[in-house]
Amino acid sequence: MPSVQDAAAQISADVKKDLRDSWAALGSDKTNNGVALMSTLFNDYPETVAYFKRLGDIKQGKNNDKLRGHSITLMYALQNFVDHLDSPADLICVVEKFAVNHINRKISAAEFGKINGPMKKVLASLNFGDRYANAWAKLVAVVQAAL
Amino acid sequence: MPSVQDAAAQISADVKKDLRDSWAALGSDKTNNGVALMSTLFNDYPETVAYFKRLGDIKQGKNNDKLRGHSITLMYALQNFVDHLDSPADLICVVEKFAVNHINRKISAAEFGKINGPMKKVLASLNFGDRYANAWAKLVAVVQAAL
Repeated sequence: MPSVQDAAAQISADVKKDLRDSWAALGSDKTNNGVALMSTLFNDYPETVAYFKRLGDIKQGKNNDKLRGHSITLMYALQNFVDHLDSPADLICVVEKFAVNHINRKISAAEFGKINGPMKKVLASLNFGDRYANAWAKLVAVVQAAL
Repeated sequence: MPSVQDAAAQISADVKKDLRDSWAALGSDKTNNGVALMSTLFNDYPETVAYFKRLGDIKQGKNNDKLRGHSITLMYALQNFVDHLDSPADLICVVEKFAVNHINRKISAAEFGKINGPMKKVLASLNFGDRYANAWAKLVAVVQAAL
């Protein structure tokens, strides 16, 4: 596992552009895209549901207030990351804050990395292909390095 | 303590306008205003420092990466709240998600309410007076109702 600094250094100018271009679509509907991201995670990796028992019946999608609240809040975390791409020191400090609760909940870097597949699907639903999924995987890798 | 629904119902059209008008200034410099908010809390209510031992030496202000990461992230939570003022159901679900970690850390509604004084000072530093502080206290009351 690289250091969080090394992982952040992999966010090149091209990667930043791909993140920002796709975020313009992803972040424009935080509720639906956030719920789609979490629901796809639960569908494709059912073992991850065990980390989210607090949410109750996740099959209800966005009609589940706890799932919707979690999903929207996740999207604001991504907004926070995307807004700080040009300042690695700030990106790292907000990623490390984000990591705290995941560490407390014993979510490993490998477990967290399961979000990459669902993110690829949600991006594809917005017509952003593999190049964009690869950019998001580089941002996810910064979080993984902090776990 | 009112229900979270009752507290959200106190956010009138006038209060929303005051929140949005002042947020335009507050949210335009999330790092400095966020750190000012937390630092003022620690200065004016030193007993709150005990809830933030994780942050280490808070006297370092924004040079403390953990304090800066916490402060910036707090400002994105406020962004999330302000963005959902027109949808009480969404506001409540994101406030309840925000409350989860505070409940886990045993931060009571009374403890959380200590943020109102520091918020009033930070707003005043941006030339927003008591009317705006009162609007923010109504939003803080929604969080308090969820604790």
